[in-house]
Amino acid sequence: MRIDELGEFALIARLTAGLPSRADVALGVGDDAALLNLSDFAADALLVVTCDAQVERQHFTLGVATPEEIGHKALAVNLSDLAAMGAKPLWALVSLLLPRALDVATLDGVYVGLRSLAARYSVALVGGNVSATDGPLAIDVTALGRVPRDQALSRAGGHPGDLILVTGTLGAAAAGVLLQGGDARLAALPAETRRLARAAQVSPQPRVAEGRALAASGVVTAMLDVSDGLAADLGHLCSASDASAELDADAMPVDPAASGISAALGRDAIQLALGGGEDYELLFTVRPDGLEQALAVVAQAGGVARVIGRLTEPGSDLLIRFADGRIEKLVARGWDHLRPQ
Amino acid sequence: MRIDELGEFALIARLTAGLPSRADVALGVGDDAALLNLSDFAADALLVVTCDAQVERQHFTLGVATPEEIGHKALAVNLSDLAAMGAKPLWALVSLLLPRALDVATLDGVYVGLRSLAARYSVALVGGNVSATDGPLAIDVTALGRVPRDQALSRAGGHPGDLILVTGTLGAAAAGVLLQGGDARLAALPAETRRLARAAQVSPQPRVAEGRALAASGVVTAMLDVSDGLAADLGHLCSASDASAELDADAMPVDPAASGISAALGRDAIQLALGGGEDYELLFTVRPDGLEQALAVVAQAGGVARVIGRLTEPGSDLLIRFADGRIEKLVARGWDHLRPQ
Repeated sequence: MRIDELGEFALIARLTAGLPSRADVALGVGDDAALLNLSDFAADALLVVTCDAQVERQHFTLGVATPEEIGHKALAVNLSDLAAMGAKPLWALVSLLLPRALDVATLDGVYVGLRSLAARYSVALVGGNVSATDGPLAIDVTALGRVPRDQALSRAGGHPGDLILVTGTLGAAAAGVLLQGGDARLAALPAETRRLARAAQVSPQPRVAEGRALAASGVVTAMLDVSDGLAADLGHLCSASDASAELDADAMPVDPAASGISAALGRDAIQLALGGGEDYELLFTVRPDGLEQALAVVAQAGGVARVIGRLTEPGSDLLIRFADGRIEKLVARGWDHLRPQ
Repeated sequence: MRIDELGEFALIARLTAGLPSRADVALGVGDDAALLNLSDFAADALLVVTCDAQVERQHFTLGVATPEEIGHKALAVNLSDLAAMGAKPLWALVSLLLPRALDVATLDGVYVGLRSLAARYSVALVGGNVSATDGPLAIDVTALGRVPRDQALSRAGGHPGDLILVTGTLGAAAAGVLLQGGDARLAALPAETRRLARAAQVSPQPRVAEGRALAASGVVTAMLDVSDGLAADLGHLCSASDASAELDADAMPVDPAASGISAALGRDAIQLALGGGEDYELLFTVRPDGLEQALAVVAQAGGVARVIGRLTEPGSDLLIRFADGRIEKLVARGWDHLRPQ
């Protein structure tokens, strides 16, 4: 059935039926606005708010990603932004732009993905909006969370000498995009390589536990999530922190799937890791004497982090040093949503 | 200049340059998320959150509405939702879906409208998102506010016997849509009639002061804003409050511009007032002994409200009674965003 056959109100009732709530939701979906109870906020807690949209043909392709994956990612990218501030996610709103001919089953799938990730982090979907569009399907999520004031992390706060770390691995999501190109040379790759690259691209896992643990550790000086590409996001961090940076190419945690796909295409895997984007890992800086603790709290949170370089005095280029002694300027050419790709 | 010539980061810098902030914004635009200070929230205060999108060719037409009006309305409809809960607006996020060929000057204008209305209510624009689209321009706003717990109003809470009131006048925005049809019979109308109908449609004024005053009065039992059309929104209120309703046709505050345009087209002005939608007035119910106080607080807030009927026992149809004794069923056929209009 098409959504315009169902109608706005029946559709909203269908999407929001049985949504799990939280004790701190005084009034959820179905009114003009949601009412949220802040009694779990300690006196020094800050409210953390972010929004990010997933737009058909810009961020996802129906038929490449499943509806469930599209819904998952729409929330995941927002939880990743909250994680980058060190926040605990609490609530989300979902604003939908819907082509009238969209199949209800597609939207049902989007909500399976949304609900499943929300449930994993006890995030209550407390509101939203439905609008028709004669353009692409778009899912715009606003996510809200909480962080103690003395733990909140921003992009600013890094100092020359701080170590630069990143969680997880890099480049797999960009490799997943390359996969979609369907180059014949990729057919011989192990199925597992293809599966991992695809999963990284369509179903990123926000580093919520790692972000909160790092914020609580007290040794992190600046943090953001890697959405535009490591080089570009490091540029943002350096710009906000008034520092430059030097990376160690050998230390870069290039994802094995990214290596495999790069090799098959004759591309440089490290460039994929530096410029690919959509990794949704956490990039952060740590006081040198805090390294052990930072690594320990990430491990306790079930993750992994690695030192990839250090902040340097401001005013110089961002550099990357290779094993053979070669030093290159880091080209912070990340994702620009408005430029033709 | 096209926005894709400017690029995402220059565009964001341009749109957010010199944005006025508030003392309670610990960190505004430019990071992964905004950090908001809740120290002005009393222990019993609730956070109020809503989102609503304005989509090109669904909600506005470039060339009919000016960019400034489009920006104004994108925030106004959200402030109207906060007003309907009785909340004081505090912060907003703006998520943009932008066609790559969009002129930067258009977006500048949208932001003039957004900023101007935000400034009027001391709302800080604390975050947002920019994404490209191959479809229509869309402006999705999330607005946040605060309301004391014992003042918060929802659609539920009305009781049979409560009086039904509405602020302002009805039908002018729908008349503004009719104007756009360009019917030759409208050419003879006074310019002022045309101007007022157009303004109601492209530049609605949220009833923020009235909403807060009504919530604080303690005599209001249920409230919502008239966005789908009075009959439809009354249906929502009755459904949530488990009541029916009877309206008095003679008491309906039909906007003079709606009357003029309806008369010129040979249409029934009261149907425009009942079904037109986008009035962004407040529809609310009051305990019978609270009427004087409700009228007084609205007047103190600079507005006007009128009794248009009363809630009745649940289970019957919504009715409207005409001066000649005729009683008709109210057809709650309001705006459905997904149905072909």
